Amino acid sequence: MLQVWGIDGLPEIAAGDDLVGLIADAAAATLRDGDILVVTSKIVSKAEGRFVRADDREDAITAETVRIVATRSHGERTTRIVENRLGIVSAAAGVDASNTPTGTVLLLPQDPDASARALASGLRERTGAHVGVLVSDTLGRAWREGQTDHAIGAAGVRVFDDLRGGVDAQGRPLLVTQPCVADELAAAADLVKGKTSGIPVAVVRGRGDLVGPLDLPGARSIVRPAERDMFRQGADEAFAAGRAAALAEATSRP
Amino acid sequence: MLQVWGIDGLPEIAAGDDLVGLIADAAAATLRDGDILVVTSKIVSKAEGRFVRADDREDAITAETVRIVATRSHGERTTRIVENRLGIVSAAAGVDASNTPTGTVLLLPQDPDASARALASGLRERTGAHVGVLVSDTLGRAWREGQTDHAIGAAGVRVFDDLRGGVDAQGRPLLVTQPCVADELAAAADLVKGKTSGIPVAVVRGRGDLVGPLDLPGARSIVRPAERDMFRQGADEAFAAGRAAALAEATSRP
Repeated sequence: MLQVWGIDGLPEIAAGDDLVGLIADAAAATLRDGDILVVTSKIVSKAEGRFVRADDREDAITAETVRIVATRSHGERTTRIVENRLGIVSAAAGVDASNTPTGTVLLLPQDPDASARALASGLRERTGAHVGVLVSDTLGRAWREGQTDHAIGAAGVRVFDDLRGGVDAQGRPLLVTQPCVADELAAAADLVKGKTSGIPVAVVRGRGDLVGPLDLPGARSIVRPAERDMFRQGADEAFAAGRAAALAEATSRP
Repeated sequence: MLQVWGIDGLPEIAAGDDLVGLIADAAAATLRDGDILVVTSKIVSKAEGRFVRADDREDAITAETVRIVATRSHGERTTRIVENRLGIVSAAAGVDASNTPTGTVLLLPQDPDASARALASGLRERTGAHVGVLVSDTLGRAWREGQTDHAIGAAGVRVFDDLRGGVDAQGRPLLVTQPCVADELAAAADLVKGKTSGIPVAVVRGRGDLVGPLDLPGARSIVRPAERDMFRQGADEAFAAGRAAALAEATSRP
């Protein structure tokens, strides 16, 4: 049995707030060994003071962008799918304009794996419970409409339930099965957090087998490097690049 | 509070089995109004007799493929990312070679939304509980390693928690937020089903607000049509197409 619930009673988070202390105050009595806390990246960013003036939003997206993956115009709006400095491919580099103080937008945490480590370490110390921590963000997907929550930071939780080397019920090897349990945990947590409820932290109980030492690989290990990714560039962008390459070849020919 | 648990006691499923009856026998005593059952597509396919001889696997993938999205060779193996006749983009068109009888592989259900409708309708009738049903499959993703479970069939469950038109805590409109709760429910269910446990059905309790009439849009509505998809083709394939287009232009010039 898996149980998932939101933590009530957290105040609005401001720059400099002690997230470990606030979460421990709100949840310490209920936390047990093996619980996994899923913390919305928004409150981590707020505590880290990652606010930017709203009229600098486009500049902020550009600054957070390492590589443009695809763009598409819808009338006046342009969707920019980009790879950010964390390697995450998402719309608008994760720059967030909802539920932020008027006149501001919010960047992603500086280093979500480090944020998760600080939270997990602090919460283990404060509460005595051997917990894991995920930092979650809402991401769109290729090929499918809508968004789901994913893990962008992790500490003390195995992000993959690695079954490679295992066998199926008929004894045949499981070749390519590597469930990304961190993303599944983030998705499960979103079902109790929602987008309008204002509940930024959820607890998942029942997968204590995934909780381990703080130096397990972080969520960075979920990111597929661009050079290994068949979808490292949008179809229109790649088509244009191929066309340009052929034309350059043709004109350089004697 | 969300609760998720696997249904024990289901037998190995064979072609022609009455899934409604088997699930009802195993779970009827525990089901309540608002519960959502997440049924692994594998057992739906088995009940529908969607077996193919294993040495026809490559032919089966080809037959299930509507459009090749991307391919990549890894030594002797070639990964084929394709769009299947359901519009779903996945590796190997969902043709499944694990946990199937020796010498066979398994195709996806013929029409997973219809399968979900038959299950939801039958289970509502048999158990008296107003439940929803999702049919789930394990899918890889662009940009991220590993796989997560997704909804490929749905009945009696809202697949999107549509917040467009809603406002954030500061009263500003939520522009592009459309959480795909069906995929999040499938992901949550996978955390109790696992790949080796042999538990093909899970129950999610606590989001009865998403359960509704059987004629709600199915999981087909999650699929983004290729023409609207910025990643409708792999980067290498699109580059090659662009290059070929330019060369064709050049050679057709007088």
